[in-house]
This record gives sequence, structure tokens and C-alpha cells, in this order.
Amino acid sequence: MADQAACTARVERFRALMAERGYDAAIVRNNPDLRWLTGAQRTFDDEVAHTAVITAHDLWLHTDSRYYNTFLTRLGSESAWQIDMDQVDPAAWAARRVSGARARVVAVEDTCDLAFFDAFAEACAHASIACLMPRMHQDLCDLRMVKDDEEIALMRHAQSITDAAFEHICGFIKPGLTEQQIRVELENYMLSHGADALSFGTIVATGVNAANPHAQPGETVVERGDLVVMDYGALYHDYHSDMTRTVAVGEPGEEKRHVYDVVRTAHETCAAAAKPGCIGRDIHELAVSVITEAGYGDYFKHGLGHGVGLEIHERPSFGRAWARPVPEGSVITIEPGIYLPGRFGIRLEDFGLMGPAGFEPFTASPHELRVIDC
Amino acid sequence: MADQAACTARVERFRALMAERGYDAAIVRNNPDLRWLTGAQRTFDDEVAHTAVITAHDLWLHTDSRYYNTFLTRLGSESAWQIDMDQVDPAAWAARRVSGARARVVAVEDTCDLAFFDAFAEACAHASIACLMPRMHQDLCDLRMVKDDEEIALMRHAQSITDAAFEHICGFIKPGLTEQQIRVELENYMLSHGADALSFGTIVATGVNAANPHAQPGETVVERGDLVVMDYGALYHDYHSDMTRTVAVGEPGEEKRHVYDVVRTAHETCAAAAKPGCIGRDIHELAVSVITEAGYGDYFKHGLGHGVGLEIHERPSFGRAWARPVPEGSVITIEPGIYLPGRFGIRLEDFGLMGPAGFEPFTASPHELRVIDC
Repeated sequence: MADQAACTARVERFRALMAERGYDAAIVRNNPDLRWLTGAQRTFDDEVAHTAVITAHDLWLHTDSRYYNTFLTRLGSESAWQIDMDQVDPAAWAARRVSGARARVVAVEDTCDLAFFDAFAEACAHASIACLMPRMHQDLCDLRMVKDDEEIALMRHAQSITDAAFEHICGFIKPGLTEQQIRVELENYMLSHGADALSFGTIVATGVNAANPHAQPGETVVERGDLVVMDYGALYHDYHSDMTRTVAVGEPGEEKRHVYDVVRTAHETCAAAAKPGCIGRDIHELAVSVITEAGYGDYFKHGLGHGVGLEIHERPSFGRAWARPVPEGSVITIEPGIYLPGRFGIRLEDFGLMGPAGFEPFTASPHELRVIDC
Repeated sequence: MADQAACTARVERFRALMAERGYDAAIVRNNPDLRWLTGAQRTFDDEVAHTAVITAHDLWLHTDSRYYNTFLTRLGSESAWQIDMDQVDPAAWAARRVSGARARVVAVEDTCDLAFFDAFAEACAHASIACLMPRMHQDLCDLRMVKDDEEIALMRHAQSITDAAFEHICGFIKPGLTEQQIRVELENYMLSHGADALSFGTIVATGVNAANPHAQPGETVVERGDLVVMDYGALYHDYHSDMTRTVAVGEPGEEKRHVYDVVRTAHETCAAAAKPGCIGRDIHELAVSVITEAGYGDYFKHGLGHGVGLEIHERPSFGRAWARPVPEGSVITIEPGIYLPGRFGIRLEDFGLMGPAGFEPFTASPHELRVIDC
């Protein structure tokens, strides 16, 4: 059942923004935003199947027969949401609700697809409804940055499953296994130990594959002396966890140990420097400077970290493009890496809360290089 | 490595459409369309991270550092695609390519998000580039409807894993297990037996949950006499499979057997009637009439079937809204169901090829109601 108090507070935060901007209505189609506003747990999947029209007085949600009963159950009878299920096109439905509400400034989330927007604009024109359609540029994502207690508890729980899976997989990995076999074991462990689903497709990459940050697991066999990068997480009540560990299968030798230490130093330097209100880009640049000073500046190209919540990648960010503060109450990853093409790759990722005194990782697994006996 | 001949043929089909419409360039951002055009296997994930600009002479693809090396490897040195990786915004990059190509009619896929479209239009305006931007309404999805031999082979293989998983799970299910336990076993089996990933989040629903067509698996325990609906599939080289079976755990009794027979009759009537060129809606209505004549017309609300390929739901469709022919060479599901709220639900789904003589299921699992001894 949705947490009514938390959801009411969320809707009120959004309505305050609407009032400030002078929006009569807002159209929301993005599933994570709808999950956040409605509080309906484990109802949304990957399909864009729902449309909300929100005004100062009403909360309307349009869905289809596949989800209707689930919404009724999840929202409970106290919910302020009115669920419409009819077979009309969602753009036509939205135009009708907007017309009925006499809304003249109708904000539209710019994450919606162009086809929906075109159809909505056409439905309004067809009904001779004049309305302004300002775009909302991730305003709801901004509101979602600061997490409430329920959200933090769900992510802590998701990470506890992820950490337990790391301990388990360290006892499983040995030379001769493929990336795919390791991945299956890891995913199976999480799903058997309380995960509702996976946060994302697990990355297990060994040998030269690990030099591709987004490698997909395949038939490459782990050999003695290899590093194995594992980037994975559990989903719990729609909230994600995210963690990367790189382990050595037998003694990896001096160079790999050295590069690992550079990555770890970059990670820990950034974790110590991250304070509420810090500028995301500055922390990214700090990682770049640590890695560059060690001589590996050409081999760290991706961003240092990203927000996590109802989406695996959300706001805020420790990236070169994020010139804004990282607020207290946000949840974010720190994940520097070094990728040597044709040779090997290393990444070390925690995720946690930007608390009042600084970064508080949810991740409990240690940072020491784990060397698996074999 | 991408199948160069197949991909060249696909690009040529698309360029013929561009020439017919008078497009100087087309902008494509939808991952399944990009996978189809480039042939880059196991490279795309759920992120919208790639942008293509296609003209009569050039194939440009913009991506980021996380995917760059994988594209180079997957496409091979013979590929006509030119991969750009720079840190510029994809909308600004696309505007620059469009400008360089002197393109004045630039078709945009209407699946793109409004934010990208707004940014692209603004980048063009900023550079004083005048161009018309007609929307492509799933034209590439239409081209993708008719599958080539490689695509059919990949889906047959994906389904063989899915069928094997059904045999396996029938030996696993017993009273006392939860939906979630059955789901984990099913998914684990597929991932351990050659699936690259899952087609979608597996549905395992028992008891009254099975009356929700899109139920998510939970802690409900299977009891003797229950029906269990399992809707799942394997992903293989980016191609999906999709199947649903409803099994009985011990003798289900007369009413459930009767409803099962109605669903099976609806399925087999439609499978026999489906011929190349048939109108999708007509086959849906045939299922409705079989189910309505049996007295369950109020309890079958979703569409009868959907195309499958690089997406789990694609064109064509056996749905009430699909008034077009279902072409030879398309791949589609047939999945009638009856859902009795608060009581139980049943669905029976195969997927297969619309061959020259009619529907040829890839699914090998039998239609008989499987009663699990217990």
C-alpha cells in the first residue's frame, strides 16, 4: 500500500512548483515520476502505459486494463488519485481532462515522446482548446533528488542484498568459469535473497573485456591472474542499488595492484571531499586529477558518479556537466575507473547518502583488493 | 560481427523510403531501430545514448565513450557506419551533421523524446539552418516487421531455450513454493542455458493474482489445486522470445479445466485462421467471439497478440486497433486469456512466424493442460 503521508508531501512539493510557475495543469508520463507521485509499489514496468493530469485540485491517472486492478490495490481507498481506464488514446484523454479543468497553461514533461506531444497538441487544436505548453525540464527529477526516510530505507535494504551477493560470489569465482556463469550465479543469488528484480543487466567483465566500461558478459573464461569487474545491483520495491567491485583471481601482479590502488585512492579522496552542497563537477575533476597525476589520465573517460533512486541513473551527478550543488539528502554513486584498452580494466563503486556531514555509503563491502585463492 | 549483407539490405530498404518521401536526412535514436540498421549485436542497453544521421551517402552514428570500442568491434572494419565519439551534446552534433550535409528535409523519428527534439530544433535555429522536420511515425518499425533469415534463426533459438525452461520448471513446481521462487528458478534456468538475458520481467502468478494479466511475482504460495500462469522468454543476440503456459498444481477441478479448454479453443481457432495478409483485428475479434460464445466475453480485455523481434512488443498486431494486414515474414504472438477477478486466470501463448501457408509457431511446448503431480 502506498505511504499516503509521504505521497501527499510529494504531491504538495510538486504543486508548489506548479503554483510558482503559474501552471494550471501538468502532464506526467514518465514512470519513475509517476511511481514517486502515486507511491504505487511494484506496479510500473518498462512500458509507457500511464498518463497523469495534475491540477491544484485533482490527480487523474489514465491507465489500461492490464494495470487497473493493481493500481486500485496498491493505492488503497484513501488515495486522492482518480484512476481512469478507458480505451481512448491517452493524448485524447489528456486533452479532455485539460479542457474540463479549464486549464490554459499546461506544462508537459519533456521526457515524453514526440508522438505523444504531437497527438496531444493536435487533440487540443481539434477541440479548439487554446493552451500554452511550457516544457518541464526534469523538474520532477529535481524534486526526486532529495529522498525521504522511506526511500532511504528501501535503498539501504537493496544494497544489503547486493553486498551479501558480493560475499557469495567471491566464494564462487574460480579459473575456468565464463563471465556469463558468474553473472548467472550473482543474479540468481540476489533474486533468491529478496531482490524483486535486478537494478540493471549485470556487468561481469574479465581480461581485456574489462577495458570496456559497459561490456556485456559473454563466453570469455576467467584465467588465473585475471581481474574480474562486477557492476550490479538489486531492485527492492522499485528502488535501485548499484555497486562495482573488481576482484583478482589469484595473485594479479604488481601493475594491476598499482592501478587498483590509484582507483581506490581516487575513490576515497572523492568520498572524503564530497559534502552537501559541493559542486558535482568539482568532485569529478578531483578524481580526474588523482588519476592524471598517477599517469592514467587518458584512461578514465566516464563520469565519476550519478544519482540513484527510482532510476538507476538520476540526479544529481558527480559528472563534468553537473555544475550544480549536490544537495543533502540525495543518493549518489562514486565510481572511478581506469580502462587500459586491450589489457584490463578496474572500477570501484559505492553508493550512498549525502548526509549532513558528507558521503555515507550504503555499501558495506570493503575497498581492499579481494584476491580469490585458487 | 554484424552481418554486412543483411545490414546493407536493411539500410537500402530505409533509403528507398527516404527517397520516396524526399528526405535529405533522417535522425534515428530508437535503440531497436539502430540495432537493426547497424547489426551491432549485444551493444545496446536501455539507455538512449546513440544518435544516427542517415543520408543517401553517409551513415553517421554518435555515441559515447562507454560504447565506442564495442561498436568498433561489433561493426568490423568493413562497416559503412562512421562512429563519432565526442563530448558534444547529441542534438548539437546532429545539427552540425545536418548542416554539413546541406540537408533541408530532415525526418525525425517521433519516438524521440521531446527534450531532444526541442534541443535539435533550437540548435538548427541557433546556426540559422532552415530545415523541415517531418515526423517518421514508426516507419522503421514497419520495415522491421518482415524478418530476414538471420532474425528468424535467432528467435527460433531463443524460443528453444524458453521451451526447455518450461520442461524444467514443470519438474520444479510443487505446493508450498512462492511465485518468486518459481520465477527465480525459471530465470536462472534460461540464463544458465544460453539466454543472454531475459526477454522481460517474468510473470509468475497463482491463485487470484493470476486474474491480473500483468501481475508481478510475489510471496503468494502455490497451493494444491491452484493454477500458475507463467509468461516469460529468453533474449538471444538482442532478439526476444515470448511464451505463456498455465499449469495446474494437482487436479484443478472441472471449472478450471473448462475455462482452460475455452482459452485453448480460442488459441487454436485463431492460429488456424491466421494467414499472411489477414487483418490483425479480425483475428482478435475471432478470439473474442469464441470466448464470448462460451460466456466469458467480459473477462478477456487485452489484445490477442503482438509482433516480436528486437522489441518484445512490436509490429504487427492481433489487436482491436490493428486494421492492417499481418504480412508474410512477420513474427507474432497468439495469447488469448480469461481472467476471473478474485478467482483465477488462464492464458495460453505461442509465438511464431507468419509463413506462406499460415502461422508456424516457434513454440514447441504442447497446448494440453499440464497437471503437475503432487
